Amino acid sequence: MRLHTAAKTHIEQPAELAAPQSIAVRVYYEDTDFSGSVYHASYLRLLERGRTELLRTLGVEHRDLFAGGRKGGFHFAVRSMTIEFLKPAHMDDELLVETRILGLGGASVEMRQEVRRGEQVLLTAQVRIAIVAEGKARRLPADIFAKLQAGAAGSPSSNRL
Amino acid sequence: MRLHTAAKTHIEQPAELAAPQSIAVRVYYEDTDFSGSVYHASYLRLLERGRTELLRTLGVEHRDLFAGGRKGGFHFAVRSMTIEFLKPAHMDDELLVETRILGLGGASVEMRQEVRRGEQVLLTAQVRIAIVAEGKARRLPADIFAKLQAGAAGSPSSNRL
Amino acid sequence: MRLHTAAKTHIEQPAELAAPQSIAVRVYYEDTDFSGSVYHASYLRLLERGRTELLRTLGVEHRDLFAGGRKGGFHFAVRSMTIEFLKPAHMDDELLVETRILGLGGASVEMRQEVRRGEQVLLTAQVRIAIVAEGKARRLPADIFAKLQAGAAGSPSSNRL
Amino acid sequence: MRLHTAAKTHIEQPAELAAPQSIAVRVYYEDTDFSGSVYHASYLRLLERGRTELLRTLGVEHRDLFAGGRKGGFHFAVRSMTIEFLKPAHMDDELLVETRILGLGGASVEMRQEVRRGEQVLLTAQVRIAIVAEGKARRLPADIFAKLQAGAAGSPSSNRL
Repeated sequence: MRLHTAAKTHIEQPAELAAPQSIAVRVYYEDTDFSGSVYHASYLRLLERGRTELLRTLGVEHRDLFAGGRKGGFHFAVRSMTIEFLKPAHMDDELLVETRILGLGGASVEMRQEVRRGEQVLLTAQVRIAIVAEGKARRLPADIFAKLQAGAAGSPSSNRL
Repeated sequence: MRLHTAAKTHIEQPAELAAPQSIAVRVYYEDTDFSGSVYHASYLRLLERGRTELLRTLGVEHRDLFAGGRKGGFHFAVRSMTIEFLKPAHMDDELLVETRILGLGGASVEMRQEVRRGEQVLLTAQVRIAIVAEGKARRLPADIFAKLQAGAAGSPSSNRL
Repeated sequence: MRLHTAAKTHIEQPAELAAPQSIAVRVYYEDTDFSGSVYHASYLRLLERGRTELLRTLGVEHRDLFAGGRKGGFHFAVRSMTIEFLKPAHMDDELLVETRILGLGGASVEMRQEVRRGEQVLLTAQVRIAIVAEGKARRLPADIFAKLQAGAAGSPSSNRL
Repeated sequence: MRLHTAAKTHIEQPAELAAPQSIAVRVYYEDTDFSGSVYHASYLRLLERGRTELLRTLGVEHRDLFAGGRKGGFHFAVRSMTIEFLKPAHMDDELLVETRILGLGGASVEMRQEVRRGEQVLLTAQVRIAIVAEGKARRLPADIFAKLQAGAAGSPSSNRL
């Protein structure tokens, strides 16, 4: 059964992918549910931490973006996600969240994320985020685009479309 | 770009789809984030309420399933989700969550969900859930299968695979 | 051991308390943790729904308050809470959240809340909320004060301090 | 107005308090609400991480406790909290959560917690947790008691009551 293809905009992929950025996160009570494992929606919080830390590494802070003199409060919004929940995580687990920029469109960024426990991949996600101001999608500002491009792979093919 | 096709098992779809089950949910502080709109992961909580209420309507209660004399604690687990975030929802909005069973596999159920505000579709999701006990996927117990089948469309094509 | 007394401002209590406002809430997966019961912080979300619905009944909507032409975005902020967790709630439980205004100060509102399952009281909370704009506590605007006063008991002792 | 005194059991306090354990936490989208600040209930998740890390430092892991051969699944449950929300935290803030054991009762532990941003105290909390199995409060097992006692101050006055 075809689930659908989420990406409606053409997104150029760099020839070589950048190494993923990895953060360690701990599973706490807050992340679990009565089945004894991590609640499925809790992973989205972990994934967002991974994306935020990748952006921070590239010099993009959400708060600056929102308040930093840009009219209307720019912020990133998730446009689509495809998530595979492969194996459960449990209380007290230490997990890795790996995030990698797959490609940049004019108004969106495609990322690939994994949640791992050691060598085991527990979850994979493909996420498209867009930049939004005053409720509308915007072209990525040139300075943000340049920072994200540096975080992709720097190959010519990730030039602005 | 191909995002992937989540469904690894063949899932038979009924000839006619059942009418979706709809629940009303209110947006509270808890659901929003500093961008002023609903936080993307909060929708997953709303979607889960919709699925739970559909199951309840069909006579399947999570707690009974978990504790009801079945060895090892049966529970539903989300296996894959593909979500399109189309328009933002805001504080105090009253939303509808519509849930429909698309098809039944031997060990999983495919659902289609929408979040609406009046006529506007804010989000669509396709969700595959599996039944799990002792950390492993199980065939749907016959009584559960029958209840879910009644909730799909009752057409011959949704017979057990 | 003395825990402390949270209320630093004098709050006048009406001679007769208003009847509490009650809302029904269902326990979903999202509210539970791996102990099998409701996660302690989840009750705070339920309590906030109760307060929001009480305010709505009195004609105070958060979004209007925030965006409604008042300079700086007025919103309510919780200033202190004292919570007793008496008995656990479980998956699929249907709970009542009861909320009552105990008294009004010039810049804050004192509320008493209970979470019940039928006759059983599972949790009690005393909550002081203040009205905030541009990061600072503000006197309650006169129209809001009047609405809250109507929701307290309408007795002369709940006049503005 | 008297809010109440939460501690119903006598809790002995050590003569000298142990130094607090401190963990750093980052504020993410997930923690904020539409007012632009951290959602009040989100602090409870941060506080719980602080308590969990203190317990881990003392050699008490929630999962081991729950599954570790003790009949019925021992786990900690919050019995009461008194929280003062003093100043708001914001998106991207790096916060410190400080946790200190104030005293041990036969069946409960009293803790004092603070959330700080640099020198500023944003929140204080006093929390009583109990150990629970099969839905009932239990005396702290001797090995757990000894570990917690080491984490309090080791003074003679923190002996088992």
